[in-house]
Amino acid sequence: MTVQGPTNVDLVRQLWERFDAGDFQGAGDLVHEDFVMDWPQSRERIRGRSNFVAVNRNYPGRWRCRPRRIVDCESLVISEVEVTDGTTVVYALSFFEAKDGLLARAREYWGDTYEAPAWRAPWVERY
Amino acid sequence: MTVQGPTNVDLVRQLWERFDAGDFQGAGDLVHEDFVMDWPQSRERIRGRSNFVAVNRNYPGRWRCRPRRIVDCESLVISEVEVTDGTTVVYALSFFEAKDGLLARAREYWGDTYEAPAWRAPWVERY
Repeated sequence: MTVQGPTNVDLVRQLWERFDAGDFQGAGDLVHEDFVMDWPQSRERIRGRSNFVAVNRNYPGRWRCRPRRIVDCESLVISEVEVTDGTTVVYALSFFEAKDGLLARAREYWGDTYEAPAWRAPWVERY
Repeated sequence: MTVQGPTNVDLVRQLWERFDAGDFQGAGDLVHEDFVMDWPQSRERIRGRSNFVAVNRNYPGRWRCRPRRIVDCESLVISEVEVTDGTTVVYALSFFEAKDGLLARAREYWGDTYEAPAWRAPWVERY
């Protein structure tokens, strides 16, 4: 019998579960000590586990995280997650690389909600 | 000898090439007539090829599209694309489903650029 360890998809699922629980130290346990997270929209780079934990711990507000999809893609795990503080909803689109059972690197985008513009209403439905 | 047709990744690459060229009719040729595109951030749904072409043709501005990554993921093709009109840069994160050699369905997110907030500067590098 082969005992399977957690897959890379499991790792990313656990990461979002720990963020959802506000367990930022536990989230840090899922990444390498030299983990690097890039946020291209603001050209910010978080280098190292302790900075990763600190940014998330200090992030204003209490955010719940609901993964909509987590997929295994070639050497990546990609997640699509709805994040809300009960008032604002944003979407996190994250591209993770795993190595030796921990997350090694990520590039993450954040999509705000916005009003549908009037100009395209003739060709668009609302849902 | 087996002649390979275009892969699903090729389809998505061609879609972005045609958007980049402003060839919206050509982009429409890569999707099924009943193609559906969802934009969760504004809860907009574009149903059908002709609406898809019309929204893109009427989109204000001339946008160039530079794919950063296009990956094959289980039943999806996921693309990460930098889109710019020369002044504003936005990122498109798109999750496509293909069927029978054409794109059938997509869910797409748009990430705006923004200023890095001061509160997290102690733990973050700029790049």
